[in-house]
Formats: sequence, structure tokens, C-alpha cells
Amino acid sequence: MTRVIESARFDIAAYLGERRRMVDDRLATCLPPESAYPEIIHQAMRYSLFAGGKRIRPILALATAEALDGDLDRVLPLACALELIHTYSLIHDDLPAMDDDDYRRGQPTCHTKFGEGIAILAGNGLLTLAFRLLSEPSEGEGHTDRIRLRVIHHLCRAIGTSEGVIAGQVADLTTQGKTFTAEELRYIHSAKTGALIEASVSCAGILCDADPAELERLGRFGLTVGLAFQIVDDILDETGSPEELGKTLGKDRREGKATYPALYGLEKSRAESVRLIEEAVELLKPFGPPARPLAEVARFISVRRF
Amino acid sequence: MTRVIESARFDIAAYLGERRRMVDDRLATCLPPESAYPEIIHQAMRYSLFAGGKRIRPILALATAEALDGDLDRVLPLACALELIHTYSLIHDDLPAMDDDDYRRGQPTCHTKFGEGIAILAGNGLLTLAFRLLSEPSEGEGHTDRIRLRVIHHLCRAIGTSEGVIAGQVADLTTQGKTFTAEELRYIHSAKTGALIEASVSCAGILCDADPAELERLGRFGLTVGLAFQIVDDILDETGSPEELGKTLGKDRREGKATYPALYGLEKSRAESVRLIEEAVELLKPFGPPARPLAEVARFISVRRF
Repeated sequence: MTRVIESARFDIAAYLGERRRMVDDRLATCLPPESAYPEIIHQAMRYSLFAGGKRIRPILALATAEALDGDLDRVLPLACALELIHTYSLIHDDLPAMDDDDYRRGQPTCHTKFGEGIAILAGNGLLTLAFRLLSEPSEGEGHTDRIRLRVIHHLCRAIGTSEGVIAGQVADLTTQGKTFTAEELRYIHSAKTGALIEASVSCAGILCDADPAELERLGRFGLTVGLAFQIVDDILDETGSPEELGKTLGKDRREGKATYPALYGLEKSRAESVRLIEEAVELLKPFGPPARPLAEVARFISVRRF
Repeated sequence: MTRVIESARFDIAAYLGERRRMVDDRLATCLPPESAYPEIIHQAMRYSLFAGGKRIRPILALATAEALDGDLDRVLPLACALELIHTYSLIHDDLPAMDDDDYRRGQPTCHTKFGEGIAILAGNGLLTLAFRLLSEPSEGEGHTDRIRLRVIHHLCRAIGTSEGVIAGQVADLTTQGKTFTAEELRYIHSAKTGALIEASVSCAGILCDADPAELERLGRFGLTVGLAFQIVDDILDETGSPEELGKTLGKDRREGKATYPALYGLEKSRAESVRLIEEAVELLKPFGPPARPLAEVARFISVRRF
């Protein structure tokens, strides 16, 4: 398979670092300060939001805007909303009633530090804030209002109970320790991780006035990258470095979770993640050179070690 | 104080019953069927949503539309979203990490029946579905898009971490068993209950093109009714019938919760709830006879026994 967008060397580490700072600067202004009453909820929300996340979803949204020659400022509120939503899902996922994780990114998880009640509410607060950001009054013309409603609706589907994040979490919870089919595994991964990554790309496309054909390609790109992302996550749970990942590893296997390595073995899973990323990058061909960063972010996903 | 909108007898029970059916019929179509994969989440969501709620918030929204000679159909998605959001907050409130309630409306609470993990996700699913409903694509002109974004934004504030429902839940959690001031009590009640009731009225006003002066009055009406509603809740926890309420009573007092009866005693609390409702009804004067149902729903709130 040919590499689609090639030319000079692309410094992915520098690109990710710069975009991450852009997102973090904006995120810092989105949340109430830690001193805002009731303080503990804002402390808990900020604690988890600034615990060292890679900001992959926001960066995918920004890189999609670049691929469409779109305005990064127009996509920045979406980028922040994506990270708020992602953090909400992690906080709830880590709860004792769900995955029961005490550490994430080398830090105590939200409920370990603030208690379960506050952790549940901090997740709820982040989700609510995401929709508040996306509906913030703007000075723009009426045409952008329709687009913004469409983005909110697309995101709600992506994180909902039918093929969205919540559906994936439910299926994850209910298949644990049971045998599972290849079809169930693909459903869980696509819903739990794929849907929000797809939405990161598609919603940025909607905001940047992508045409239906472009949106269709971006949607397939996002779903494919999302599936690869979760396969890499599964692989890292078995082979990664606890220092680099900052969490207990091998947990999926011990708890009989539906993972790619459990069904296909490590080698086949690795090959599949690489194949999916190349398939995804191929989809970006019609976008030409402006899609280079988006392709490189996708490639980073398959080679990442954390 | 004069009774504002008086004339023929108003059959509040019949009115509430009819409006409740209208809301329930629409709610039934909003949720995925129980047979939709993953089934358990849709079963849990429907279980709590159809556990016998009074539908006060949706009915307040519909009665506000009537007060403004507005179209009930335009307000119905909002009415449903309000009930989805209210049910989400109850499911999470009942969790062991929060109020730890096993029964509500005479039925086992969501986590008692489905487990904590599914209950947390069912709450999240209802909240997400509310925003999905409010952003559903419509055929209307662009002018309604701006109004719908405004409604979403208003609701996000009402249920958020600064003076919204989550703020109230946090303050409720952190003041438990401690001494509290009159100011803290008012804050908790206004945030935990008042804000969503205010939003029920105000968002219906926004959708029905109320002018700024009308919105200002409706907002004050909603906040006042919301505060009265929570005071009556506090009173019923001490004096209500367990059969009519379907839950364990006296819990607030035992757990040292911040309530009106705890601070002011039962008699003063009763007088205050009646005074607040009459103050609220007085605000409806300029709306004339069409506001009669809204006034009667408010009055029902202060005399309700469940």
C-alpha cells in the first residue's frame, strides 16, 4: 500500500505537543476555577481533566479542520467538548461499580482521591459542561446555529446507548468473564472507543462545511482509526510499560475482558491495527497535502507506547 | 393577597392526569425499545422513567406554553427532555455513594434492581438522550435553531456545577451531618431543585417567543415555585405517608441533612411554602386567564401529599 501524503519529514512529536498546548490553554478557561463554590467539584473536574491526557480526540478534530482548510478557532470549542466528554467517560469507567481502577496515568483515579459520590458528579459536570460549551451564544449568522445543533446531535448519538460510548460500556460490563464472538468484540470496540473518535473527525468536518462525500470519507476514517486505537489499547494492556502507561496492566486478561489479543493473539492484533491505520490513511487521499497532519496523527496512534 | 386568576372551578386532578398522559405517550416514543441492544440499559432507563413520576416539570413547561398562547407541540420535546434529566438526577441521587436509597415511589431503585454500574450508565443515557432530543433535526426556519441552542444552553446552566442541580447535589453531600446556615440551605434548595424547575418554565418561555419582560417574570416564578417545591419535599419527608410517597421517611433528619424543617421547624416551613406559592402566582397576573393552569399547578405543589 502506498503512503498517501508523503514529502518532507513530519515532526509528529512537535506537532502533538503544540496542539496539545493549544487545547490545554483553552480547556483551562472553560472550567470554573477551583475556588468556585462548591469548590470540591471543580477541583475534582480539573484534577481528572489535567491528569496528563494525550488530547487525541481534540487533536484529531483540529487536524481535520486543517485537512479542510478550515478555521481552527471554529473547531476549538468542539475540541474542548470532546476532551470533557472523554474525561467524563474515564472517571465513570474507573468507578468501583465499573472497571474499579485505582490508578490512571500514574495518579490516583478521581474516586480514589475525592470519593465515589464526588467522582460521579464530576463526570456528570464535565458532560454537562461539554454541551454548554457547544451551545454557547455566538455572534455568527443563523447558518452556523443549524450546524452547531447538528454537531450536538451527532455527538449525542456517538456517546449514547445505541452504538455509542454508553452502549460500549454496557456491553463491556455484561460480557466480562463470558465467551464472546468476533462480532461482539467489534461492536464493543466500535461503540466504546470508535464512536467518539469518529465524532471527533465528523463533527469537525460538519463545522468546517465539508460536503457529503467528504463527510462520508471522514466518518469512515474516524471509525477505522477508532477501532485501531482500541486494539492498540488492548495490546498495550498486555505488553506496555507500567511506567509509561501509569496504570496496572494485564487486568483485561485477568478479568476475562473482550479484547483483540484474547481472541486473535498479539501478533495478529498488531498486524490488524497497522492494516486499519493504512486503510484509514488511504481514505484521506482526496484531501491532498493539507491532510498530512491528520494522517500522521492516525499513524501515531498505531505506534504509540502510552 | 388576592387570588389572581380565578373564575370557574379548575379540576387540577383532571388537568394533571391529562397532561401526564400526553407527556408519557411522547416519552414512550423517545426511548429505544427494551429489546434494543444492549437490552439491559434500555430496560433500566425505562424502568426508572416509568416508575410513576408526577411529571411536574414537563407539566410546568406545557402550562407555560398555554400561558403564552404557545404551541404545545413545540414544547413537548423540551417537556420530555426535562423528565429525562430529572430521572437521571434521581437515579444518581439514589446510589449508595450519594443518598443510598433502596426504594423510590414504592419500587426498588434502579441500582437495587440493575446493579450500580448499569444504574450509573442508565442515568448517563437519560441525560445524553435529553440533549439528543433537544437537538433533533427539524424542518423549521433558521430562527428556531438559535432558540433551540439557547434552550440547551439555559438547561446546561440549570443542571451544572455552578448554582445548578449538580452544585446542589454536591452541597447536599458535603453539608450532611454538619451545621448549616440559612444561606447555605437556600443555596442547596435553589440549586438542587429550583434551577431545573426554573428552567422548565423559562425554556418553555424561550420556545414560545416570550419577550424579555415575560421571561424575567417567568424566571422568578420558576425559582420561587422551585424553592417551595423543595420545602414541601422536606416537610413530606417528616410528615408524609410512606404508602403515598413509596419511600423510607425521616431519613433527612436522621442523616443530618440541610432541610427547612430542621432549621425553622414544621409550622414555619409550611407557612413559607404557602407564602412562596402565593408570591409566585402573583407574578403571573400580567399573563391573564391563559395562565390559570400554570397557577393551579403551582398551587398543587404546595398542597401535594406525594
